[in-house]
Amino acid sequence: MVKFLNLFASALIFSFFFSCSGGENNASSDAKKVNIAKGAISLSDAEMEEAKDIYFNTCAGCHGTTRKGATGPSLLPDGDGKWPATKDLGTEAIKVFINNGTPGGMPDWGKQGLLNEHQIDLVAKFVQLPVPAIPDYNLEDMKKAWKINIPVADRPTKPDHDRNWQNYFGVILRDAGQVAIIDGDTKETVSIVETGFAVHILRSSATGRYFYSIGRDGKVTLIDLWMEKPTVVAEAKASFDARSVDVSKYKGYEDKYIIVGGYTPAHFVIFDALTLEPLKIVRTGGYDVNNGEYLDEARVAAIVASHKDPLWVVNIKETGQVWLVDYSNIESLKITTIDAEQFLHDGGWDHTGRYFLVAANAKNRMVVIDVDEQKLESIIDVGTKPHPGRGANIKSKTYGHMWVTGHIGEGTLACIGTDPGPNRWKVVKSITLPGSGGGNLFVKSHPKSKHLWVDRALSNDIKLQRSVFVYDTETLELVKTFEAPDKYTGRVVHMEYNKAGDEVWVSVWGKKDETTSALLIYDDKTLELKHEITGDWLVTPTGKFNAYNTMHDIY
Amino acid sequence: MVKFLNLFASALIFSFFFSCSGGENNASSDAKKVNIAKGAISLSDAEMEEAKDIYFNTCAGCHGTTRKGATGPSLLPDGDGKWPATKDLGTEAIKVFINNGTPGGMPDWGKQGLLNEHQIDLVAKFVQLPVPAIPDYNLEDMKKAWKINIPVADRPTKPDHDRNWQNYFGVILRDAGQVAIIDGDTKETVSIVETGFAVHILRSSATGRYFYSIGRDGKVTLIDLWMEKPTVVAEAKASFDARSVDVSKYKGYEDKYIIVGGYTPAHFVIFDALTLEPLKIVRTGGYDVNNGEYLDEARVAAIVASHKDPLWVVNIKETGQVWLVDYSNIESLKITTIDAEQFLHDGGWDHTGRYFLVAANAKNRMVVIDVDEQKLESIIDVGTKPHPGRGANIKSKTYGHMWVTGHIGEGTLACIGTDPGPNRWKVVKSITLPGSGGGNLFVKSHPKSKHLWVDRALSNDIKLQRSVFVYDTETLELVKTFEAPDKYTGRVVHMEYNKAGDEVWVSVWGKKDETTSALLIYDDKTLELKHEITGDWLVTPTGKFNAYNTMHDIY
Repeated sequence: MVKFLNLFASALIFSFFFSCSGGENNASSDAKKVNIAKGAISLSDAEMEEAKDIYFNTCAGCHGTTRKGATGPSLLPDGDGKWPATKDLGTEAIKVFINNGTPGGMPDWGKQGLLNEHQIDLVAKFVQLPVPAIPDYNLEDMKKAWKINIPVADRPTKPDHDRNWQNYFGVILRDAGQVAIIDGDTKETVSIVETGFAVHILRSSATGRYFYSIGRDGKVTLIDLWMEKPTVVAEAKASFDARSVDVSKYKGYEDKYIIVGGYTPAHFVIFDALTLEPLKIVRTGGYDVNNGEYLDEARVAAIVASHKDPLWVVNIKETGQVWLVDYSNIESLKITTIDAEQFLHDGGWDHTGRYFLVAANAKNRMVVIDVDEQKLESIIDVGTKPHPGRGANIKSKTYGHMWVTGHIGEGTLACIGTDPGPNRWKVVKSITLPGSGGGNLFVKSHPKSKHLWVDRALSNDIKLQRSVFVYDTETLELVKTFEAPDKYTGRVVHMEYNKAGDEVWVSVWGKKDETTSALLIYDDKTLELKHEITGDWLVTPTGKFNAYNTMHDIY
Repeated sequence: MVKFLNLFASALIFSFFFSCSGGENNASSDAKKVNIAKGAISLSDAEMEEAKDIYFNTCAGCHGTTRKGATGPSLLPDGDGKWPATKDLGTEAIKVFINNGTPGGMPDWGKQGLLNEHQIDLVAKFVQLPVPAIPDYNLEDMKKAWKINIPVADRPTKPDHDRNWQNYFGVILRDAGQVAIIDGDTKETVSIVETGFAVHILRSSATGRYFYSIGRDGKVTLIDLWMEKPTVVAEAKASFDARSVDVSKYKGYEDKYIIVGGYTPAHFVIFDALTLEPLKIVRTGGYDVNNGEYLDEARVAAIVASHKDPLWVVNIKETGQVWLVDYSNIESLKITTIDAEQFLHDGGWDHTGRYFLVAANAKNRMVVIDVDEQKLESIIDVGTKPHPGRGANIKSKTYGHMWVTGHIGEGTLACIGTDPGPNRWKVVKSITLPGSGGGNLFVKSHPKSKHLWVDRALSNDIKLQRSVFVYDTETLELVKTFEAPDKYTGRVVHMEYNKAGDEVWVSVWGKKDETTSALLIYDDKTLELKHEITGDWLVTPTGKFNAYNTMHDIY
């Protein structure tokens, strides 16, 4: 399992992890069926549909929708000259891989009970058959899927309520396909809205008044926080699979456009920010920066909007390019394509908002983009499989300003100097986390806080995966370790501050069909648990987004 | 034939026409073979290779390499919902089309003797079979194909001769796969160099010292005019099929990079301008501006370098986008993608060098790009199938500065006002050419000349296709008509001025295996024929490029 953690491709680890609780538990670890003769594989239409779904949700992240391989090997019937032909491996061997995983990083889907015997059999056959064509998803399709539930003219012109909406939290209820809007002052649930499947993130509009959610199914929803009961005022679909959304934030363009990054097809789409009318698509296929190979499946990972320029920073996973998309004239879209490193995933701004740091997780590196100068600033070696989320900006007494990422693959935090001078773009401090293995998914701090919060959600150690570690940002010493109370089940994942920066919200992510999930709210000064949010409706809570902090990119 | 001229897709007309003399003449117009049962089509490996070659050289221009259609309809075994399935049409019907052409614009390949019965049979079967995959052609392949014949250090540091090399002409000897370098002062042939197949154009380096040729086979050659006997000092290959090349011309970047536009694969490639080392590839696939359909086959038509900015203007045929590629940092390539019109082909600068006018030949329009402001300036309706080449900048007494294009599909010249004021971006004058039909391929003038030269190379009238018409630029009156002397056979095509702007060179383009081609050199003042260049070596002369005029984009 250590090897798994060290080597497991993190391209989709977030999604993989977030899908853990959705699996079935009746798998047998060793399939005993008679092997199917080579060439005799077939699936009925119904089986094919089921197999495609399983592959898409379980395997595509690492092996690619077109099965050409990404962080995992290719899975092609006739091989690709590098990895063996799946037809030569045969069903039984492939089932063993799916059941047991591999030391190279493949999870043990069967043993973990995430796929059952029937599902494993289907997908083992599926990967020996020709790759189904990926249908196009174009502007016409998007226009058909687009819905305005409440026209702009019918929306409130000022808040319909007296709540402190800038301190609202949007909480992803992953397996319910919902987002809960919770009042951060009163801790009351103001609304639960229907969103896309397995929402990946929320982003705030430039004004903070709207939340945008993006589902793994490519569905975007626009949630209006000025309504007494926030609801989805418009919805659209950008692709079959997506991870990222952001809004235009530059002066004069506030809430004019949003951009959504697609995995399948690999493209980005610009929508009207207030109506979600689809306006423009740009494909992201290209040549990868390391091998110069053409990749049609060049998926869009994190996207962030600059506050200083009319730019979005668009990270292209497979090619390793960062695209700066200038939205000041979308009929003459200006795109700066910066060669960086593979495979780009997620990241955040340094404390000045000039530099964007993004993980190249296949290379164990962080890439620094100078967004003002529109160029590559630095590439920094960090630990195994960095997974920063947005990272955390802290200031230590010894090293000054630092931007911090944890790692999935090892138990360290890399603290990167961001002040000008000799410390800049160096790992000036590596903090070793308690216990063995890696498994960190998120770190979090706040400019008004002296604390850095660290989860271990992907640890293989049950105690660690239910723990949160709090460090002093000035001394970098561990000051407290929390464990989730026993009455709540599941892993502890993802932290978010309230608007004032004096409270930290943490998810305990239980199973879909159990009511033992919770949001734990800690006082950031006293480090005491001050509030617990629970309820039937709190289904598989994962990411949480404070409206004000998300609007201003405070982390 | 008029209909053919009116409607024939000009996407590849230049190449089509230039391939006329290479065809075989033993076709029978009516194939009598027994029809092949539907579904029973097959080709041997050798036949398949031959069919692919025929398709590529004859059909791909209009129907697309992937047979999805472009200016011509799609040719897919199962159809595309818009055009019929080729399998349903069957071999005999398809052969009739290829033999006789169609009123919609398809040439009568058989009747014209450009394809023989065997070739027609092969290609009729080929288009009913699945589309062969287009292999990738990446940086690694390009590095293998790259050759430096004479390293930069071994090249002359000043001209090795006393000739007036800025008045050299590079003359394309199309079917010989050669370029002749001719001294414009003495009319002596200085050198004949081996180039790619069917060179499409030459461009001059920023210094004028080098010629770059681009072959239809994607081969780029670098020819050094400072050598006593100019030779190919470096060569490279950018794709399987290409049409365009230009160099970096902006101050500080002179002769640093070249860009080559590929048809198949559809991409552009940046090379080191002095060594031809391949540096970077960018794919051009995208969504077309009219229907929003994703087109992987988005071929690169004309490319020109700005003299005022570090920009190349890259015209993407199928999507109808103009890309402005900023080469000031090729690791952070900045591309402005301007939505314009389908299908973009060729064009030239206005008299100020600020505006680039490019033909959208499927829409009978000219697109004007403001390259300073990096935006679409205007779209102008002109006649049927404009084919400007670089166009011609002239100044009339009545209308001031105008940029002129002719048309393949009709016998008019569209004179577009380019001065600020009410005439700007309007067809202020349409000149009707003598005789019936269109068939104009090129127009040419020079700032020091009062004449505008016009060919009719694609006319179906033998007299017209061997004629050149000269207009007075101030009065727009026809002042002289030349016909090629009888001793020279073939069509008359393409004009080029000498450096001084007082001489015009015209090609008489005979057949490959005959020695009756000629370059006719006219005095631009007296309009008298002053010199004739002939010889065994003068095989199928087409385009001619004066070093000085090409370097400075004088037309």
